[in-house]
Parts: sequence; structure tokens; C-alpha cells
Amino acid sequence: MDDVKIISVNGLKESNFIRPRRLKYTQAGKDKIWDYMIVHDSVAILIFDVSIKSVVLVRQFRPAVYMTMCHYAEKTNDQPEPKPSDGITYELCAGIMDRKEPPQAIAASEVLEETGYEIEADKLQLISEYRNGVGTSGSLQFLYYAQVDNSMKVSEGGGCDEEGEMIDLYNLPLKDIKSFIEDTTVTNRPVGVLFALQWFLNNKAENFEQVD
Amino acid sequence: MDDVKIISVNGLKESNFIRPRRLKYTQAGKDKIWDYMIVHDSVAILIFDVSIKSVVLVRQFRPAVYMTMCHYAEKTNDQPEPKPSDGITYELCAGIMDRKEPPQAIAASEVLEETGYEIEADKLQLISEYRNGVGTSGSLQFLYYAQVDNSMKVSEGGGCDEEGEMIDLYNLPLKDIKSFIEDTTVTNRPVGVLFALQWFLNNKAENFEQVD
Repeated sequence: MDDVKIISVNGLKESNFIRPRRLKYTQAGKDKIWDYMIVHDSVAILIFDVSIKSVVLVRQFRPAVYMTMCHYAEKTNDQPEPKPSDGITYELCAGIMDRKEPPQAIAASEVLEETGYEIEADKLQLISEYRNGVGTSGSLQFLYYAQVDNSMKVSEGGGCDEEGEMIDLYNLPLKDIKSFIEDTTVTNRPVGVLFALQWFLNNKAENFEQVD
Repeated sequence: MDDVKIISVNGLKESNFIRPRRLKYTQAGKDKIWDYMIVHDSVAILIFDVSIKSVVLVRQFRPAVYMTMCHYAEKTNDQPEPKPSDGITYELCAGIMDRKEPPQAIAASEVLEETGYEIEADKLQLISEYRNGVGTSGSLQFLYYAQVDNSMKVSEGGGCDEEGEMIDLYNLPLKDIKSFIEDTTVTNRPVGVLFALQWFLNNKAENFEQVD
């Protein structure tokens, strides 16, 4: 997954994924300017497999994370040059809402595509809705909980081959969730995964805990 | 705060805040393209005022959130047109790291500027570090905890006048934190505030709870 070679980095005015805008407006009569971008709304799903008593996370090389690391390493000149393996993240299964379907349906598709579990969209439990990057994009994310077992595992997952996705699954055992949340040495994860795992500990974990 | 009038919305190639890029790379020998943007790293601070037993949040009109709402309302054509008041968020005190200072120092400045509490940078407790928008930007956010009392309140806060910030403080009492986190009808908040509040309930709240 970290066999990555950079070919080129270029400026970009607009794409299907990043639509930068400059807003001029007045607030209480004062002239203001704000730069932002429109990006897709998204879904994220916390998956717990009761058969293996583990949360199922995904790991993938994230160009935006890696290039941001390279940018800051170059700018500050006081840290070692990042390696592609540093750009691999721990995340919830997730996807952008780029088609006109209910968020639950898109979430169920992403679970199947990325992790290989076949779930019914209406079984997804809404945990929360919130905004990502309120300063820069403000896109909405729907966060769901999906409880699965090994009978629902119908494929390997790994992402959409046509889109070139390369996704590894990472099983986080129930007993390790707390230390995963508290570990401040691993920064390559969105805060949504931390919130979702904490929600799981507070609301679901007691159903699965047992005396060892 | 919601006396907002839109003057113009224009495309944007590059600015100090939004630097869109197109990366061409190979992964395991396969050609790939990823569009992303470089944005500033940032700090966010969970502030608890022990004198009033409340978390101190900030509220402000967020152009990126409001314009994203307008974009999706126009696109889907099935929801009422957003009003500027819909673009006001609940957030942690926060700021971008746009100068060469340690994140704690920037965090302490933001706390003073936005909320009027004077705190010592080295008293800030690191809660976590994580990435925002791993698909689109991957910028790093440092999350801190600051415990304050009314003797440290030296000004009204409200943001930096020169930068045209208009920020209202919102005191969230200890007893209301749980319902604030669980309320899925209010979506105008970043997930970082939810994680931070949950962290507070799990790690700090018991020090301040009392029998009514």
C-alpha cells in the first residue's frame, strides 16, 4: 500500500472534488471576504463485528494527509522528510455522497465495498450529524453505527477496484479501544473516529464485555 | 451576528487559506490522481470555567457552512432556502497556526482573543492530535483542555476586531453537556466539539459534580 511514487503536483482551479470559492459579504454592515470550498457531503460508519468482538476500521494511503505532511516538513525544515507509509490513516469506513440516494443507502454501499459486510441500510443507527472543516468547507457528515457478524461477510472488501482504491481492514479489539483513543502518538486519524469509538464505549460496549 | 448580506461568490484559484492542488502519483505501479488542498494546521481548546461550572463555547457565522448549505439546497431543490442564522455554529475556541509559534502559545492567544480568559500556555493539557478532512486537506489539529475561573477573565473576548471577527460566547452548563452531545437535530458543529465534550465527561466532570 505504501509503494507510492509522486509524479507531479500542480495548482488546480476547480475539480469535481474541490471547488474553491471567494465570498464577498457584509456582516452588520462591515465588508468581509471569506475563502472556502465546496466539497461533497459524506457518510461514515462505525462497524462492530460481534463474532470477533472488534471494531472494523479501514487503512489507506491518503494523498491529502501525506502531501500536507510534506508541505509542513519543507516549510519548517525541522522534521524528517515524510515517507509514504506516514500517509496511511486509521479511519472509519466512509464515503462521499456523490449520487442522489439517501445517506443510509450510500453508507450501506460503502460498508460492502470497503469491508465486505452486507448490511441492510435501514438497520443503520444514526449516531450524529455534524460539519467537517467549518472554516474551510463546512460539509455535512452523517455518522452511523452498524453491528455485523461473520455471516454477513460476503467479500474481502478493499474498496472499488475501478476507482483504484486500495484499502486494508484493521480489526480493533474491544479491549484495545480505550488505549487507541488515548494514544496521542498516532495522529493519522480523523477526529470522527475518536468520537465514534468513544460513543461505542459509552453506549454499546457493555453488551459485549465479559470476564476474561 | 446574522445580519449578513451576500455581495458576490466567485471562483478562486489560490489564496492564503485555500491552496488547491492536483497530485499525480503511482501506487503499486498504478497511475492515480488525487485533488486536495493545503490549508493551515490549527488548534482547538476545550475551556471549562469552574466558577460557573460551564464549558465555554464560541458561536459565529461561518461563511463556508452557510454557503455549503445554500449550494446543497439549490442542488437538491427539496429544502427551504437557508437563512444566515442557519450558518451560525457551536464550536470550541480555535484558530489557525499561521505563525511560527508553538501550538500551545497560539492556543493561549486564541483563548484570550475569542473568550477573554488569560491563561498560561504551559498549563494547557493536550487531549489529542488528529487530522481534519483526511480526504480533502489532511491538516493537523491540536486539541487542548484549559481550566479557568472568573479571576482569569480579563476582557470580553469576541475575536479580533481588526480581522472583523464577530464571536459570541456560549456557556454550556455541566449538566447539559450530555444532552448537547446527543442532540442530533443541531448539526452546525464540528465533530471535534463532540469528541472534546465527551472527553470532558469521561475525564474531568466528576471533579465538579455535586449533589443538587
